[in-house]
Amino acid sequence: MTNKDARTPASTQDPTDTSENGEAGKSIGWHKAYVEGTRPDLRVPVRQVHLTNGQSVTLYDTSGPYTDPLVGTDVRRGLTPLRENWITARGDTEEYAGRPVRPEDDGIRHTSPRGGLRNLDAVFPGRPRQPRRGRGGRAVTQLAYARRGEITPEMEFAAIRENVAPEVVREEIAAGRAVLPANVNHPEIEPMIIGKRFLVKVNANIGNSAVTSSIEEEVEKMTWATRWGADTVMDLSTGRNIHTTREWVLRNSPVPIGTVPLYQALEKVDGRAEELTWEIYKDTVVEQAEQGVDYMTVHAGVRLAYVPLTAHRKTGIVSRGGSIMAAWCLAHHKESFLYEHFEELCEILAAYDVTYSLGDGLRPGSIADANDEAQFAELRTLGELNTIAKRFHVQTMIEGPGHVPMHKIKENIDLQQEICEEAPFYTLGPLTTDVAPAYDHITSGIGAAMIAWWGTAMLCYVTPKEHLGLPNRDDVKTGVITYKIAAHAADLAKGHPGAQEWDDALSDARFEFRWEDQFNLALDPDTAREFHDETLPAEPAKTAHFCSMCGPKFCSMKISQDIRREHGGSRAEIEEGMAQKSKEFAAAGNRVYLPLTD
Amino acid sequence: MTNKDARTPASTQDPTDTSENGEAGKSIGWHKAYVEGTRPDLRVPVRQVHLTNGQSVTLYDTSGPYTDPLVGTDVRRGLTPLRENWITARGDTEEYAGRPVRPEDDGIRHTSPRGGLRNLDAVFPGRPRQPRRGRGGRAVTQLAYARRGEITPEMEFAAIRENVAPEVVREEIAAGRAVLPANVNHPEIEPMIIGKRFLVKVNANIGNSAVTSSIEEEVEKMTWATRWGADTVMDLSTGRNIHTTREWVLRNSPVPIGTVPLYQALEKVDGRAEELTWEIYKDTVVEQAEQGVDYMTVHAGVRLAYVPLTAHRKTGIVSRGGSIMAAWCLAHHKESFLYEHFEELCEILAAYDVTYSLGDGLRPGSIADANDEAQFAELRTLGELNTIAKRFHVQTMIEGPGHVPMHKIKENIDLQQEICEEAPFYTLGPLTTDVAPAYDHITSGIGAAMIAWWGTAMLCYVTPKEHLGLPNRDDVKTGVITYKIAAHAADLAKGHPGAQEWDDALSDARFEFRWEDQFNLALDPDTAREFHDETLPAEPAKTAHFCSMCGPKFCSMKISQDIRREHGGSRAEIEEGMAQKSKEFAAAGNRVYLPLTD
Repeated sequence: MTNKDARTPASTQDPTDTSENGEAGKSIGWHKAYVEGTRPDLRVPVRQVHLTNGQSVTLYDTSGPYTDPLVGTDVRRGLTPLRENWITARGDTEEYAGRPVRPEDDGIRHTSPRGGLRNLDAVFPGRPRQPRRGRGGRAVTQLAYARRGEITPEMEFAAIRENVAPEVVREEIAAGRAVLPANVNHPEIEPMIIGKRFLVKVNANIGNSAVTSSIEEEVEKMTWATRWGADTVMDLSTGRNIHTTREWVLRNSPVPIGTVPLYQALEKVDGRAEELTWEIYKDTVVEQAEQGVDYMTVHAGVRLAYVPLTAHRKTGIVSRGGSIMAAWCLAHHKESFLYEHFEELCEILAAYDVTYSLGDGLRPGSIADANDEAQFAELRTLGELNTIAKRFHVQTMIEGPGHVPMHKIKENIDLQQEICEEAPFYTLGPLTTDVAPAYDHITSGIGAAMIAWWGTAMLCYVTPKEHLGLPNRDDVKTGVITYKIAAHAADLAKGHPGAQEWDDALSDARFEFRWEDQFNLALDPDTAREFHDETLPAEPAKTAHFCSMCGPKFCSMKISQDIRREHGGSRAEIEEGMAQKSKEFAAAGNRVYLPLTD
Repeated sequence: MTNKDARTPASTQDPTDTSENGEAGKSIGWHKAYVEGTRPDLRVPVRQVHLTNGQSVTLYDTSGPYTDPLVGTDVRRGLTPLRENWITARGDTEEYAGRPVRPEDDGIRHTSPRGGLRNLDAVFPGRPRQPRRGRGGRAVTQLAYARRGEITPEMEFAAIRENVAPEVVREEIAAGRAVLPANVNHPEIEPMIIGKRFLVKVNANIGNSAVTSSIEEEVEKMTWATRWGADTVMDLSTGRNIHTTREWVLRNSPVPIGTVPLYQALEKVDGRAEELTWEIYKDTVVEQAEQGVDYMTVHAGVRLAYVPLTAHRKTGIVSRGGSIMAAWCLAHHKESFLYEHFEELCEILAAYDVTYSLGDGLRPGSIADANDEAQFAELRTLGELNTIAKRFHVQTMIEGPGHVPMHKIKENIDLQQEICEEAPFYTLGPLTTDVAPAYDHITSGIGAAMIAWWGTAMLCYVTPKEHLGLPNRDDVKTGVITYKIAAHAADLAKGHPGAQEWDDALSDARFEFRWEDQFNLALDPDTAREFHDETLPAEPAKTAHFCSMCGPKFCSMKISQDIRREHGGSRAEIEEGMAQKSKEFAAAGNRVYLPLTD
């Protein structure tokens, strides 16, 4: 989204890139700026790109205070809780003692000689805080406010980011067509909105697992992912230190954080799905809600009756949450406890404003299984649960597949929108073929762009390591960039106001050989610059009026500029000249060759 | 395409990868095999992947003799001319002295102290050969044979590759809906077919330029590109040694080679477009046709009257060929010599069976310019030229854009098919956004998959270096793999017979934790294996029944396998059990929660 001639930013900072990622200076050419709303404490960050022709282009910015040299950040203290006053001013929440943190929360069931956590320093050292919830259990959700006609500061913040009127944001939330994930215990976030009427959003997954990864790596992956444009981050940790990792991530995250509480609950029963209970699950949800998780994937649509539908699938159940619930249902031969206790769960989520992400536990894991009976049976149940959640004023989005060939993608979004009353669709990919492990960011980026064009509100990224291993820093970046491409391609196809200005600015720079502007406007300036320099490294090449494809004496852009010089008077003059030419050709039969009869 | 239970290959070779790319041994797990046709000299190469469960999967193979350890290849001698007997047996061509090679053919206008070519060793040392052409100028094209009802060995070869009856190939060629590019002077190729009824094909561009690159690099890029799946290669060289580079590429290429003769013609007039003449152009076409170029991009649709239509574009004319012709038209204020001499050009191409690729010289170079007046004016002219070419029995495909946002893609293929009587569409991308230089393989892979699903027959790859520099070896591989993904995703969406068997085989391997099979079936086995090993390097991990995402004790695939064990009787048994469950749920109102009214 560009915003060339809109509001003047409240302040413009030094062009120093202060990211902690060791590449300071590389991204010179853009400044962090702020657009002020109706109150001084409502300052919306934007990325302002300064062009060499004196113009500037304003882009949506997800990178948080880390890219603002005037804001001191310290991962050991966490970010400033910018929503705190907005939350307290509403007067509908209260602080309370909260649930005590237990060793099991970090996956430690037995006393170890080293006293529990692998590394005690790992406990988040920031200021002490008490959790907050809706007074007397009331629903303190953005949905509840929107339905009452209130435009919250969060809504105004998101509206400024989207270049729309705050009332549009309120309306879409009230109608259940959009969500604004914002747990009252995560005051650090810069509010954003997810809905088909707005810019398509991208989620990046991080998370350690039993096999590898550390807390530090996960926090760094979060800041790295948001630097490249991730709008939300899901912490899918499954190993030890889950609670502690999440605390570090939340306190340092400028974007909403999602989780799958079932993963942690399973750790608490040592990986034995059949030992899960509603009580353990519920306790985990409260634990995470108190920490500030903004949205939670809940696989309540995996019902006992649907499990056999997956038995003859090519790849069975591939969702981890889905398979855990299926295993539980099978072991007890009982209906899912998530489905049975769904209303109680709604009450909990409403009191913290945790948004539901109703999980597609039966999503297809291969082209062969796409759009099958199991998948759509679950979707119908998600529709039912969506209606219940709305009754409790819980914001809700619906998760979608998975592996789907191109010709079966549209049915997914159309059915979801119909069954779930236009609740935001949040899809993984979909992957359009199974044959390219190591390139599933691409197999899925294709499907993601298409389904987003057709109405998906948020895309869950897929990295090159999908199916193969855990994404490292490079994979996270590649995944985010690929999905930003898919999302922006969809914004263009949907005709989102302002989306094309970004493309236009870059294409203008390209046509006029403003190489530095082309780099700075790129989704990934560093790599664009690096690729250019690989062929033409010298500094003068950055201002050269040619590029490495054609070389200096033979350049199509240059020839085009000559044409523009010759024919580039006013539009009227050109049309005049053209009309003359057309007449001449028409007089000659408009073609050199006569119509053919054989 | 898989071919599990089809013909038995004529022979199966040693599992040694003899590619000259220095990675021998890495791709163990597949063998080069051959499917014999109706005559012993018609042996169609396939890639046979041997699975650890004893099954095998047969895939389309473009890599040529280089991956067959029983065939000795020597780039200094060139490949065996396997079509030679087929061509001579037809008795409709004759050898002749041919046009003498001149220094200008290699871009050398002035005598240099070093005697011309930068490196005299560069002259191709293979066996001497005389060019061949249709006796008395007759049309010796596959189109002419197809129209006469003849199924040539080339058609049968292509039919076996596609798993269709030879008659289908003949029909599609005769109707002009498919082309089989096969210059009589390029007997080394393994024939292939391009048309919407067949597998979607991928072209890779190579070519040195005035700025960088060498002959050796270009030949290696060609073998490298075909190794990863390029179906044709275009040599877009623009610098010196154009003639010689092309000779090396042609004599060593198992796939059809395309060129843009205008590039070489421009070199002959030292880069001054206005000095081009029909005579120089025609001489260049003959030169290249005698060498064996299988298809040529001809920008005959860039007419004088259309040039002013581009003056107010965001990015003018971005096609090199288009801008050269526009510059010529402007300089002389005359109609394009390509348009005016098109019939004469048809006569030349028909005598060698060079296929037209009617160039889209006015394709949009930015989102802003997509589907504009200039673009579609040219397309209508291409339709007119297509009809003329067919009259001369010249095989013809039509080139397409460019930069096009998703919602404007379908109009391109629909219009092209209508205007050009279903002639094969051959598109560059299209790129679905302008904002991601360094990732344009992805911005365009999205558009490529979509337009191929809707009927495009061949996709011209885009590499990560697009707009920035010349692709190196890694970029060529990334571009080819990305486009093979797009092509295969389209084959699946079109329901191409057999396409899904490949996905199914890989998904089966994934579900059963047959890691080695998963790697060997992957589009890029090397990278898939490398990514897996990065997280779990130990050899036992390759047979482990878990992966790095969940770790050993918590694995969704494993849980799914348990479900299959419990519920995986016959389909009938499962349905029986399921029906019982359904009845129980139906009796309970099919839901736990009652319908909501608020």
